[in-house]
Order: sequence, then structure tokens, then C-alpha cells
Amino acid sequence: MATALANGGAAATTRVMSVYSELQTSRLNHNLPLPSVLRRPFALLDGPPSSAAGSPAEIANLFPHLFAQPSANLVPAAAATATSPSPTHSLKVGVVLSGGQAPGGHNVISGIFDYLQDKAKGSTVYGFKGGPAGIMKCKYVQLTPDFVYPFRNQGGFDMICSGRDKIETPHQFKEAEDTAVKLDLDGLVVIGGDDSNTNACLLAEYFRSKNMKTRVIGCPKTIDGDLKCKEVPASFGFDTACKIYSEMIGNVMVDARSTGKYYHFVRLMGRAASHITLECALQTHPNIAIIGEEVAAKKQTLKNVTDYITDIICKRAELGYNYGVILIPEGLIDFIPEVQTLIAELNEILAHDVVDEAGVWKQKLQPQCQQLFEFLPQAIQEQLLLERDPHGNVQVAKIETEKMLISMVETELEKRKAEGKYAGHFKGQSHFFGYEGRCGMPTNFDANYCYALGYAAGALLHCGKTGLISSVGNLCAPVEEWTVGGTALTSLMDVERRHGKFKPVIKKAMVELDGAPFKKFASMRDEWAIKNRYISPGPIQFMGPGANDVNHTLLLELGAVQA
Amino acid sequence: MATALANGGAAATTRVMSVYSELQTSRLNHNLPLPSVLRRPFALLDGPPSSAAGSPAEIANLFPHLFAQPSANLVPAAAATATSPSPTHSLKVGVVLSGGQAPGGHNVISGIFDYLQDKAKGSTVYGFKGGPAGIMKCKYVQLTPDFVYPFRNQGGFDMICSGRDKIETPHQFKEAEDTAVKLDLDGLVVIGGDDSNTNACLLAEYFRSKNMKTRVIGCPKTIDGDLKCKEVPASFGFDTACKIYSEMIGNVMVDARSTGKYYHFVRLMGRAASHITLECALQTHPNIAIIGEEVAAKKQTLKNVTDYITDIICKRAELGYNYGVILIPEGLIDFIPEVQTLIAELNEILAHDVVDEAGVWKQKLQPQCQQLFEFLPQAIQEQLLLERDPHGNVQVAKIETEKMLISMVETELEKRKAEGKYAGHFKGQSHFFGYEGRCGMPTNFDANYCYALGYAAGALLHCGKTGLISSVGNLCAPVEEWTVGGTALTSLMDVERRHGKFKPVIKKAMVELDGAPFKKFASMRDEWAIKNRYISPGPIQFMGPGANDVNHTLLLELGAVQA
Repeated sequence: MATALANGGAAATTRVMSVYSELQTSRLNHNLPLPSVLRRPFALLDGPPSSAAGSPAEIANLFPHLFAQPSANLVPAAAATATSPSPTHSLKVGVVLSGGQAPGGHNVISGIFDYLQDKAKGSTVYGFKGGPAGIMKCKYVQLTPDFVYPFRNQGGFDMICSGRDKIETPHQFKEAEDTAVKLDLDGLVVIGGDDSNTNACLLAEYFRSKNMKTRVIGCPKTIDGDLKCKEVPASFGFDTACKIYSEMIGNVMVDARSTGKYYHFVRLMGRAASHITLECALQTHPNIAIIGEEVAAKKQTLKNVTDYITDIICKRAELGYNYGVILIPEGLIDFIPEVQTLIAELNEILAHDVVDEAGVWKQKLQPQCQQLFEFLPQAIQEQLLLERDPHGNVQVAKIETEKMLISMVETELEKRKAEGKYAGHFKGQSHFFGYEGRCGMPTNFDANYCYALGYAAGALLHCGKTGLISSVGNLCAPVEEWTVGGTALTSLMDVERRHGKFKPVIKKAMVELDGAPFKKFASMRDEWAIKNRYISPGPIQFMGPGANDVNHTLLLELGAVQA
Repeated sequence: MATALANGGAAATTRVMSVYSELQTSRLNHNLPLPSVLRRPFALLDGPPSSAAGSPAEIANLFPHLFAQPSANLVPAAAATATSPSPTHSLKVGVVLSGGQAPGGHNVISGIFDYLQDKAKGSTVYGFKGGPAGIMKCKYVQLTPDFVYPFRNQGGFDMICSGRDKIETPHQFKEAEDTAVKLDLDGLVVIGGDDSNTNACLLAEYFRSKNMKTRVIGCPKTIDGDLKCKEVPASFGFDTACKIYSEMIGNVMVDARSTGKYYHFVRLMGRAASHITLECALQTHPNIAIIGEEVAAKKQTLKNVTDYITDIICKRAELGYNYGVILIPEGLIDFIPEVQTLIAELNEILAHDVVDEAGVWKQKLQPQCQQLFEFLPQAIQEQLLLERDPHGNVQVAKIETEKMLISMVETELEKRKAEGKYAGHFKGQSHFFGYEGRCGMPTNFDANYCYALGYAAGALLHCGKTGLISSVGNLCAPVEEWTVGGTALTSLMDVERRHGKFKPVIKKAMVELDGAPFKKFASMRDEWAIKNRYISPGPIQFMGPGANDVNHTLLLELGAVQA
């Protein structure tokens, strides 16, 4: 952690404006619109008592002080039965970035900072450095207008950097408590994904149980798009990342069509859920997109997936197309049950046995696993056997799924060619679009959304709320019509049993096979497979046509809700 | 070739506007400015007789009809001693795309088409499909306003597709002649790189020698940026490709700074010359950029390059930075003399000997080559031995240079760590940015430049010129001030001796170590190495700040010429 902290400091001081591009500078000075409810005097209106996403009794047990608390909505100040924050009440607030980067994080911080400057004069904001470790070690920087300015509307998390630590042990909670007391914190905003928001809620519960004044508010961050629910229709960063990947995919499509000789296999970030792949498919119309959740629901094998791709390649060859574009979610193999079984068996065998050259060890695999192992390309077999994590486990995350599929499709096509069932020619080209998208300059949507999320988080703290996640809704309407509030984090939770104990979790939002985005994709994919319906979205624009477009997933999901 | 031709047809019919993105549609209707000399009645002013870039006697011998012909400039019609084209003189013109894609190709064709529509009413334009093969096989489509429209300002070459065939043998020249006669061609525009323009000139000479009326004009295309000279200050596509790669590099830089734990090794397209890497370095300020021409000039070894990178990584670790961004040109290893020697020896040995497991075969390598081979990471050794082209030769192009360097740097760092000279931690992350850039939507610069190149090519043909390359200059000024003309292709040529014969070649323009772009880079790189001066250019904009910016290479080169 020490390094990340050191980098945090170093990074912040290296954001010198003399090395900004023209676009960066223009975005720096771009004024962000706010939802109208945030632009005028507002009050907070509590809803009915909340429950939990599942196992309410266990959640009530785990969060005795927070369970059942209402969600809240911001309304114009005149509304009855609402409480307004006092403008003379200044606050001391900490903010922390947790987990992987997502475009817009700096705008959440700017939103919090501006809210407190605008509405609670005399407030202080501390940025904890390097993620939750910064809270525990009390490593922070006090935010000033000059410090915040160079990060407005810019990508990355380098203002205060992030980290993947969790506050878990009693000692760690005590450390967080000490920091909160030392800095006299009225509030803490945790910007993170499902795990980090669960952690935020545990911290809120802990502070409340200790009768501390420190309130905790979460903000929904992840490019993967798997932290969302009715009240929180999107996680920030997803919009920008998908548009960056779609720009690249669109370019590759035009290239494929122009040369007519490559099948591009594009792996896209998104390990747990396939939202990114689905959104990019809706934006670009590839010939094939594999959605992990469907593979899992249909209990497909690797052979099934290979055959599905190969069938389409063969059909296209008959039509004279020996090129195409195929999208694959990073987490694909995690969705295939048989692969999970193989990996479990491999971990077991490799822990105890020697891998002999002759391959006698393979006989320890169950027949089905042995068959699957033999089906894998040699390079993948070697990777599974050789590259192990510090615990000796096979590193699934390191498998280059797109290369594996190219190799398996190639083998299958050769077989069919020998059988006279395929007469085309196949050249696979692999791509991984990942890091390029995590730190892009936020789109207008993400810039606005994040600023509103941060501004709302400030408002919730100012009203004395805790254990809520900042919630901005009606996102397909113009910004002024967006709704603003906070949702009880406990209401998003369920429990999982781990090591014999109940652990609270915010369930990851997976691609719903009966949801509007997947249904739209499913209704069009056969046409995309055979006819070429490629769309090239081009680079993200900040002005002019399309600059304020909302992504398809959000449009379809909100449209379905409103319909 | 058959496939490419088939795709050509299929592709054209699949550009349906209903599947255009909002940005694509808006670009479709974007009106392109023209240099003012092209907007008014103009005349063509011949310059003095030209010579050749080298070996003028041999060039005169190879091009008896064309050698010494003057270059020409477009001037307002009033100027004396100039010839004006007749507006009633309609033409039949063919156009062909040759070689790899570059953003803007469609605009060159649009420019030719519009010129003939505007200034030579009744003209006909044929698009040859699938590159030079389309000329030889007389595969073409007649261009109409409706056919051209969907491709205006769009990326790719899919309007008529491209190909890599050359017109070389007497039979092939005869085929081209037959097509020219059959279609009654007054002119042919060849859009391509150095080889294709050499071929265009040979065709112009051939047609002239046969007393045919068909004239040939070339246009400078290649994202690699290595086809340029005083009269042709840039090849089209370079600007867009570099800006797309720089967007990605900038994003990766922000990511590197935010996480503080990765060294990103980014391989960039550009095999023969390192212009792309140099331009991207000037746009983004990486910690390290390797320029192939410098490596060659200094006769560096792979070990030298590895040590250079490792030294900087060690220095950065002392400052607390365990991250960075390193740019590597695709063609790096072609620039390293010792690698060339090793590959030549390997090809020789592998052609005759068996590679025994014990490694006895290695003793056939010269000591230095043996040492270099042992220095290479195992994966690269295997690749060199196993992956061979149809002629049995080692496939240098397939070597993933960025991964090779990561592995070699890692080994060197471990050595230094053991010696107590390095205490940081290193995680390499590899990227290859290639296909994403070749087919992007052209920047405003490339869109305007290509349109002017095409419009000028039409004007040159209309004035009866042949054997010229369309030349648009003064490119750092507003479009209306751009100069327009044609440069004698023979004046760009030298000869190379191949198989005992003189072959005419347009010399590739390499990165000049005493040129302004490299000198600027060299003056700043030490600072970039240690201090983090990252710039994130962000996505290409078509409106607003920066949308009309010219790339650094062009600015510096033209600035140096004008200074």
C-alpha cells in the first residue's frame, strides 16, 4: 500500500496544467449542469421503512442500527414534512476512492466539494489517499479549490488514487474510528463498487453503534455496470468505457469489412457480468457477441460456444464473407460450469501431485474433465499447469479467452474443411480492450451524472443521513429533470454464507435474460450474424451531434420501467 | 483476390444508412472546405524540368518518356503562361485503392468525383475493386452520386476495397492496357504508398510509351507517414491514426498514474519507419519511446535497448514511481543489426538441419548470434524456431516485441535486484495498437486534406498531366491558403539493385535524427523519463477546441522549412 500512497501524493503534484491537451483544458473549464432540485433550496423527504433484497432477518441482525431506515428524496424546500439542511452548519467530510478506476470519479469528488462550498460554507473536505488504506492509516490531503480544479471532468483516479484494501477486522474498524475522531469527521463518502458500498454500510453501522457523529454515504462506481437497481439505475464509468470500447470495435469492423480477411475476436473488460459486452454489441452490431449469463443459464460447454461461433463462420463463408467481428466478455469462462469443475480438480491435483511429462497425472481427472482438458489448445493447457498464483491455484484471470477461442474455432474449422463442410478461409486476430477504457475522459453523461452523485452525497450528509447510497434517477431526461435522493444500503443487501458465517453482500446485477437490453440484442443477433449491420460510433464527442446521448442499456432499461 | 473482389461488392451494398451512428450521419453531411485556388477558375503553371532523388541516369533510362517532366502548380486562371482545362472536356477516369487502409481514402475518391462533376460535366468515374487486381481483371463499379454519398468522411476502404497486388509482369501491364482501352480511360488515379506510387509511375510510362491517352496520377497514402518529401508534406491517414493511438496511450497513462503499479509497453503500428511512435510521443509525453532509426544509427543491440529501459525504470523506482508508459515501434527489431544477422543464420540453419532438443544445432550459430539467441526469452526462442512462413523463413513480423521487451526487462531487473541495485517492483502490461487506427473516421485534417488531394488529382488529369503525384502544401495554414499542384513522380525516385536489375523506388522517408520532430523529442525525453509529463489528448473531436489541430510532426517539419 505504501507505494500507492506515495504515488497518490506524487501524482497529484504532477497534474500541471502546462501539460494539458487542448481538449483537457477545455473540459476543465466546462460548466456542469445540475438537476433543478439541487439548484434551489431543497428539503429531504423520507420514504417508508425499507427492508432488504433478501434475508431481511439476517440483515437486520447484521445492521441493528441501520436496518429498515427509509430511503430519502430531495424535493423543493416548500414541501411539507421535509427537513432542510442549515446553510450555517459547516461540515468536515472525508472522501475515498475504492477499487478499479472508472471515468468520472474526479467529478464525484468535485460535486461533494462544490456542494459543501456552495451550501455549507466553512466546510472542510479531506481526500483519503490510496483507497480505504488511507482511512486506516490516516493518510489524506485537504482539498482546496486549487487542488480540485485540475481534475474537473478529467479521467483517472489520480487526484487521491484508489486501492483495493477492505476495512474488515476489528482492528481495522478501530483504525477507521481513530481517523474519524482525529479529523472530527461529520461524514465520509465512499466511492466504489458493490463490495466497497457493502463496506461503507458496515462502517456506517459501526460508527452509529459507537454513537459517533460520522455519517457514511456511498456512491455507485464500476465500469462493469453490475452495481445497479431500481433506485440506482447506473454505476458511473460504464457509459464512458462502453463508448471508448465501441469506438475501437467500430474501427475494427470497418477494417474487417475493408480487408475482408480477418475474424477479429475482441475480449472486453467485465469479469463478473457481461453488461459491457452487451452494451457494446447494441452500439456496434457485431456478427457475434457471447453473453456470459446466457452461457451459464443454458449450461453451455466450451464446445457449445465454439460450435456456435464456428457455425456462423461457416454460414458466412457460404455467403462469401470470410471476415467478422466477435465480442467476448472477459469473464466468459467463469460462466462455464465444466471449466469451473476442471479448474477445481486441477487445483486439487496440482497441490499434491507432480505433473509428469508422459501425462499419467491426467488419469486423476474425472473423465469429463480429462476430455475438456484435451479439448483445450496446448498453449492454454500449459498456462493452466504452469502459471499459478501465490496459493498455487490456477490463474483463470490470466487466460486469454479470445486467443483460446480462436485456436478452438480454427481446429473445428479444419475438421469441417476435411469433411467438406467448410470451404472458406479463416484468420483470427485477437484484441483485448481493457485499460484503454477505465481512465478515459468522462462522457458528458458520466461527467454530469458523477457531479450530481457527488453533489447529492454532500446534500445527504448535510441532512445528517448515513448508510445511504447517493441515488440520481430519471437519467434519460435532461439533467434538470433528474431526481436526487439516497437509498438505504441495507435495502440492497442479502447475505451469503462464507466460512460458516453470514456475510452481507450487495448482489451483483447480472445481465437479465428477460431484460430489455438482452431481449433487444437477442431479437437482432441472427440478422447481425449473417448480414453485416456494423455501426461505427466513432470517437466520443463533447459537442455537436450525439454528444449527450445516453447508452442503450440505460435507455432500454429505463424505457422498460417507464413503459 | 477473388474474395476481396466479392467483398468489395458486398461491402458497398451493406453500407446502409439506417445503420449509421449519429456521428457517422453528421459527418456524412459535413461540407468540406476547398483551397481557394480550387474554388475559382485556375490554370496550371509548369515548373522547371525535374531530375530524380538519386541515380538520374538510371531513372531516365527506366522512364524515357516521363523523366525530367516538370512539376506543376495550380494558380488563379489569370496568370500568364498557364494552361486552363476546358469545362466542356469530359473525362473517363478510373480510381483504385492500393495497400493497407488509411483514414481518408473515401474522401480522396469523393474529391475526384466532385471535381469531375463540378468542372468537367458529363465525366464518368470507375472504381476498380479490390486494388490493382481490379484494374487487371477489369472489375469495377461506376460511381454515382448515390453510390459515393454514404462514404463521405467515413473511415475504411470498403467503398471499392483495396488489395496488395502489383502490376509487374508484361502480361499484367497488358491486362491494365486492355482495361484502359476497354473503358476508354482518359485517366487513372492510384491511391497508395511508396510502392503503389512507383507502380503508378511505371504505368504512366507504359501508357505513354504505347501512345495511349490514359494518364496516371498518384495520391500519397499511408498511416506510417513514410511517404513524404518537400512537395508532398504528408501522407494521408497518419494524422488520424496517430490521434487515435494517442487517445488510447493518454488513457493508459492516466490509468498507470492512478494505479501506480504497471509499466505499460505499447507497440504501435509502423514497420519501416517510426514516425507514428515519434508523433504519439510528442502528443502524449511517455516515459520512454524507442525510435527505430536512432537504434539503427547508433548500432544498438537488443541488450542496449533493454538496458536503456531498465535504467530508467530503476531511476523511477528510486523516486517512488513503479509505473510508466513505454512506446515501441512495430518494426523495432528490423532496426537492430544483430537481430537481422541472427535471423539470417537461423533461416539458413533451419533450412538444412534438424533442431535437436539437446540444442546441439545451436553450435552452428556464430558465437555472437548464439549469445543473442540465449539472451532472448524462451517464448521468443520457440516462436523463432516454430512459426515459419510458407518459405520456411522465420516470421519476424509475428514477434510480439512489446512482450519480448517486458520479459527481457524483467530478467534484467531481477538481476539488479539480486545485486541490490533495484528495490522497486515491476509489472509489465502489453498493448498493441494497430487495427484500431487504420480505419477510424478521418480527422478534420485528413478529411480536408484527402478531399483536396482528390480534387487536385481530378484537376491534374483534366489538364492532361500524367506521372505526377497530387501535391497539396502549406498544410499548417487554413485550408483556403493551401497550395495545390502535382509533383513529377520520377523526381522522387532512386534505383535499387535487385536480382541484378535496377528497380525504381520512391525511398521511404525515415525519421530524420536531425529533423525538427526528433530533435524536439530528444530535447524533452530525459524530463519525460523521470518527471511525469503525461498528456491525455482525449478522443478526436470534430467540433470545438482542438478539432482542427494539425499533428506535431507536420507542424514541426513545416515550421522548420519555413523558419
